Amino acid sequence: MSKISYLNDKFINFKDAKIHVEDRGLQFGDSIYEVVGFVNKNFIDINFHFQRLRYSLKELGIKYNFDNKKLMNIFYQLINKNFLKNGLIYLQITRGVQPRNHVYKKNLKPTVIIYAQTKSFNLPNKKFKGVKVISYPDLRWSRRDIKTTNLLPNILAEKIANKKGAYTSVLIKNNKITEGAHSNIWIIKKNIIFTHPVNTDILKGVTRTALELIIKKSGFKLNENSFTMNQFFNADEAFLTSSGSLVTPILKIDKNLVNDGKIGKITLKIAKLYFEKFSNENLKN
Amino acid sequence: MSKISYLNDKFINFKDAKIHVEDRGLQFGDSIYEVVGFVNKNFIDINFHFQRLRYSLKELGIKYNFDNKKLMNIFYQLINKNFLKNGLIYLQITRGVQPRNHVYKKNLKPTVIIYAQTKSFNLPNKKFKGVKVISYPDLRWSRRDIKTTNLLPNILAEKIANKKGAYTSVLIKNNKITEGAHSNIWIIKKNIIFTHPVNTDILKGVTRTALELIIKKSGFKLNENSFTMNQFFNADEAFLTSSGSLVTPILKIDKNLVNDGKIGKITLKIAKLYFEKFSNENLKN
Repeated sequence: MSKISYLNDKFINFKDAKIHVEDRGLQFGDSIYEVVGFVNKNFIDINFHFQRLRYSLKELGIKYNFDNKKLMNIFYQLINKNFLKNGLIYLQITRGVQPRNHVYKKNLKPTVIIYAQTKSFNLPNKKFKGVKVISYPDLRWSRRDIKTTNLLPNILAEKIANKKGAYTSVLIKNNKITEGAHSNIWIIKKNIIFTHPVNTDILKGVTRTALELIIKKSGFKLNENSFTMNQFFNADEAFLTSSGSLVTPILKIDKNLVNDGKIGKITLKIAKLYFEKFSNENLKN
Repeated sequence: MSKISYLNDKFINFKDAKIHVEDRGLQFGDSIYEVVGFVNKNFIDINFHFQRLRYSLKELGIKYNFDNKKLMNIFYQLINKNFLKNGLIYLQITRGVQPRNHVYKKNLKPTVIIYAQTKSFNLPNKKFKGVKVISYPDLRWSRRDIKTTNLLPNILAEKIANKKGAYTSVLIKNNKITEGAHSNIWIIKKNIIFTHPVNTDILKGVTRTALELIIKKSGFKLNENSFTMNQFFNADEAFLTSSGSLVTPILKIDKNLVNDGKIGKITLKIAKLYFEKFSNENLKN
């Protein structure tokens, strides 16, 4: 059975989802994207994704007007047409097609690509697992706050992580950890939770945004300050967050165990609180 | 008449030149490119382009083996099939297609896109023209030595340049000029020619490489050191180089005239020497 995807106003077979070679997404990386998780056919933190999508479009001046409900309807159709239950929606919007020129024309028609794929999430149950990460230099450009497809520095980092048998990489700039190659990074020391502040040095993760509210609500102390590798090595617990990884414990960084290589209590508590939150939201829908 | 292009071993109509949405060039900017000029059906500095192409492929670990002669033959065919005389070859090589994942698989088949388009070059004759440029922050990643399609910072700079009626932008990092958004930048002070040294802060331009040899051969003094905006303002002459712009005089930067807004004598001399060199090479072929 063919996989169904959505390209420029139409549902089509995924194998036929093709774009022209002069699409600016291909020639310049002139495009942005979102990856939205769904569990039991319900989207996780969908409104934060729409918020960030609007932000990315605005910052790059890509003129794509969308209605949350209509877009969500396309997502639902993709889930249903492909008989999925748990997985990820991939949405990419490029500035459109024009004869190659750094200067983009006004009023281009953006290219819209959406498809869904199945995924087993790392949920805080008996199978909950922690991961190993490596550190890698943060080679990225100065506007990490925009979710663009200029992802080569991330790819180079992830290739090394993969070679070393690690789940992902955490990126280092001026001896501070900015974030993961596709996640936000958190450490816990003496019951205080640290994560990098929101600025142009990191992407404001959707899971990060949702978790921030949960952490504050549940009485944990949150300190939005960047931290060094040394602070990471000496942390009591550590975890990463992303739409694909949800809350995932970090048990080892480079050659250093975190919390003796065990999932920390606060990490587990937070992962459960997050899982409960989006599960409850789903029940309400 | 349809324009003919080359995609993955085949000559096809340009309008049909399409790639799959899971091509890594589109999803990650996981690709590199070259733009090769041709005048009177002869390629300018073709061997330097092939050298740099190999360098970019090697640095990113994209496994595309090519034979210079075979590739050049495709270029010639494109020129002939499209009845072109002067213009540009655009060549892009992506890592290939795979289900979306930051970690790339080994042994992917690279996507190869080649097409040609007509262009009138700025040649050092009666119509030789100088341009206005603006300064703009250099927001790029740390590996500007690789000619990748992660070009968003360049696009943002060129949009502003275009809005301000400028030909292009020169990029500033730590108060020094690195290079243009798609060119190398040179200034002349007291008969000494300055340009940024070759390192990971700039792309080693093919025209830059060719010109370096010409400058040294012809007895001009070349100083490969970065320079500040202030040095630029106080320069006697300035010019930019690229495969599309060849040697193009800079007459104004932001609100400051260079050489009273006139094409400088040394710049003209260098532009002529460069033109003679590739014209002579063509005659030899």
